Amino acid sequence: MTVFLVGAGPGDPELLTLKAARLLASADVVVHDALVGDGVLAMIPDGTELIDVGKRPGRPVTQELISTLLVQLGRAGRRVVRLKGGDPFVFGRGGEEAAALRDAGVAFEVVPGISSAVAAPAAAGVPVTHRGVAAAFTVVTGHRQAGEPDVDWRSLAAVGGTIVVLMGVAQRGAIAAELIAGGLDTATPVAAVHSATTDGQVTARCRLDELATTEVRSP
Amino acid sequence: MTVFLVGAGPGDPELLTLKAARLLASADVVVHDALVGDGVLAMIPDGTELIDVGKRPGRPVTQELISTLLVQLGRAGRRVVRLKGGDPFVFGRGGEEAAALRDAGVAFEVVPGISSAVAAPAAAGVPVTHRGVAAAFTVVTGHRQAGEPDVDWRSLAAVGGTIVVLMGVAQRGAIAAELIAGGLDTATPVAAVHSATTDGQVTARCRLDELATTEVRSP
Repeated sequence: MTVFLVGAGPGDPELLTLKAARLLASADVVVHDALVGDGVLAMIPDGTELIDVGKRPGRPVTQELISTLLVQLGRAGRRVVRLKGGDPFVFGRGGEEAAALRDAGVAFEVVPGISSAVAAPAAAGVPVTHRGVAAAFTVVTGHRQAGEPDVDWRSLAAVGGTIVVLMGVAQRGAIAAELIAGGLDTATPVAAVHSATTDGQVTARCRLDELATTEVRSP
Repeated sequence: MTVFLVGAGPGDPELLTLKAARLLASADVVVHDALVGDGVLAMIPDGTELIDVGKRPGRPVTQELISTLLVQLGRAGRRVVRLKGGDPFVFGRGGEEAAALRDAGVAFEVVPGISSAVAAPAAAGVPVTHRGVAAAFTVVTGHRQAGEPDVDWRSLAAVGGTIVVLMGVAQRGAIAAELIAGGLDTATPVAAVHSATTDGQVTARCRLDELATTEVRSP
């Protein structure tokens, strides 16, 4: 049996793919993250087993445990959907789960989803590329984890495209300072988007040099 | 009437969003690009007017003409879907069409789609981010157009994440040389993906210093 690593999109349940909807409708068990929206979870038929492996403060779930669970469910012949917020391969740790399944000899397939990295700027009216303005965009995490290489913010400032920072609320002041040190104009426009594409979306706009003191909600 | 700027996804019609499928089912007229896959076009009901504005060699369609067409159709009260390959705001010129509609006072809404920038690497088994390996990814066009700022490939090499080059087949030798000059290892692994997520997908793999001489198909 194939384990499907499926992207749930940015929040709006209508931004689920047809393939994700089909797989959810026929799954035996859905293993989901905290970032998957309630509207998407509501689309899963009654009777489907739901396993919430969302990491939350005070309730750590190790990545190794999740990978072991997926291997066990796959080996048991269950129809498994591993449902992840956004896209499985964009800061979704999907690469690690895919590697664990491959190492265990369990068949798997990755089903991409719409990443909030693109959908959140779009929902705020910001094209990540625009002719004559931005010929590139970089998606980067503002949240450093042990074992992650450091981000070279000053080089990133020199690249000259749109910069999308995920999980950057806590470090926004330090990130803005590094980008300015790398040559970005202090007046560079910034949009900070919370709960993008949902009814609760909040967008804050400011200049880069105001980002540290601008109130931004964390997910 | 609202004009919908809709992403058609990377090729596989099942990677369309539920929202895109709903809008296509009720559209009066669909204005589409050459990059929209045949499988997606086949989902549009008979009787819907299809306008192909795809740019092809020897048959240039100016962006201004497309924007004017969308404004006219929107003002005429037609139910318009502007269907673009991938995502409208990722190298889709969607920003220009949105600006033209806004300037003309025609209501519009952007419906994101899955960009090949993420789906093509995934379909080749490459997560664009991976813990301990890549904490960022940059999406950049290899095809320079008049009025576009140059890409600073050497700074990009210093950023230290995955680099996704769209429309880069013709310039792949020059791009590889610049990235190596910027500090990337000559043995950096490269995957070149053609017709990603479709039955005709072709993936070529090589080292960065072999890219210039590796055969890669252009769309």
